[in-house]
Amino acid sequence: MKSFSSLDSLSEALRCLPGVGPKSAQRTAFYLLQHDREGAALLSRTLAQALEKIHHCSLCNMFSEHLTCETCLDGERDASVLCVVETPADQLMIEQTLTFKGRYFVLMGRLSPLDGIGPKDIYLEKLIARATDGVVSEVILATNFTNEGEATAHYISEMLKARGLKVSRLARGVPVGGELEYVDAGTIARAMLDRRVA
Amino acid sequence: MKSFSSLDSLSEALRCLPGVGPKSAQRTAFYLLQHDREGAALLSRTLAQALEKIHHCSLCNMFSEHLTCETCLDGERDASVLCVVETPADQLMIEQTLTFKGRYFVLMGRLSPLDGIGPKDIYLEKLIARATDGVVSEVILATNFTNEGEATAHYISEMLKARGLKVSRLARGVPVGGELEYVDAGTIARAMLDRRVA
Repeated sequence: MKSFSSLDSLSEALRCLPGVGPKSAQRTAFYLLQHDREGAALLSRTLAQALEKIHHCSLCNMFSEHLTCETCLDGERDASVLCVVETPADQLMIEQTLTFKGRYFVLMGRLSPLDGIGPKDIYLEKLIARATDGVVSEVILATNFTNEGEATAHYISEMLKARGLKVSRLARGVPVGGELEYVDAGTIARAMLDRRVA
Repeated sequence: MKSFSSLDSLSEALRCLPGVGPKSAQRTAFYLLQHDREGAALLSRTLAQALEKIHHCSLCNMFSEHLTCETCLDGERDASVLCVVETPADQLMIEQTLTFKGRYFVLMGRLSPLDGIGPKDIYLEKLIARATDGVVSEVILATNFTNEGEATAHYISEMLKARGLKVSRLARGVPVGGELEYVDAGTIARAMLDRRVA
């Protein structure tokens, strides 16, 4: 079996994909070579192309092929509201709701001291520069409602409030369609505290 | 979001990987661009290299970078016994047992009329040519013990026996370490029929 150096290299390289271990890397390599050489060739090309072309938007940090992304260049979007999200996927989710027409800032991560991720790793200086451009008047924190997301939101909130900005956070509460019986106590407690006039 | 053409192409291309749908393709694309550009670049290169270099061994059909693979060229292996397997992974599994020192033939599939896979798709003519080379005296059928694997074994068996070759099949029975209580009835029935003198 020693002659399979290209095959071994391929199996090894496939392990860069999230959730792919040695066994499934090998299975994937066999699959591609046997059943989808065209797809694999396309993948090889698009990967190289994407790596070459895609960088971060100079304003919002989102992936972009240009210096500034289309969302930031879109004159119809409200430049006075900035929504801070953890990841590009989060931004796409918010876009899908069609409820937000301001600008974004993508942290590309969250504060996580245990993993060694500090303020520098999530571009907080870039965020401060962006939020204090004189146009932005409100920053909406849309980090996840996990421990790390909450800590990140708190940290950013303190940082921006000190600079005189209005900072808000997505509402917490019972999910739409949620039945109280099956919602966790923490969420219900939060929904109770944050109750609003009907 | 329309400017992400490279990103969209990448997400689309990642779907050639088995078990990757639109959502996880996008997640993978984001992950690679953000956290593992080096791994992605390596994957792009090794994919292209593997596609260029790896073909099928002219004798056994296994993936090989050369016209004839190392296993087929290995003079220490018994050329009179040929083990027929469905996939390269099956061959690797048998190699790991260290119980077989003959040659292989890899079908790269199994007969599956419902999926439109007939005798031509699993290289049966190549197998006949290989098995009737005058040196091979026994063919061991090691296809899977699924319905399709069994049908494939039966088909090949009839075909080779008609040409005067000795054909055998891997033993069926209770797995090593298996407790009868938890083994299915079909397996026990088979083990009973194939029982051997102790």
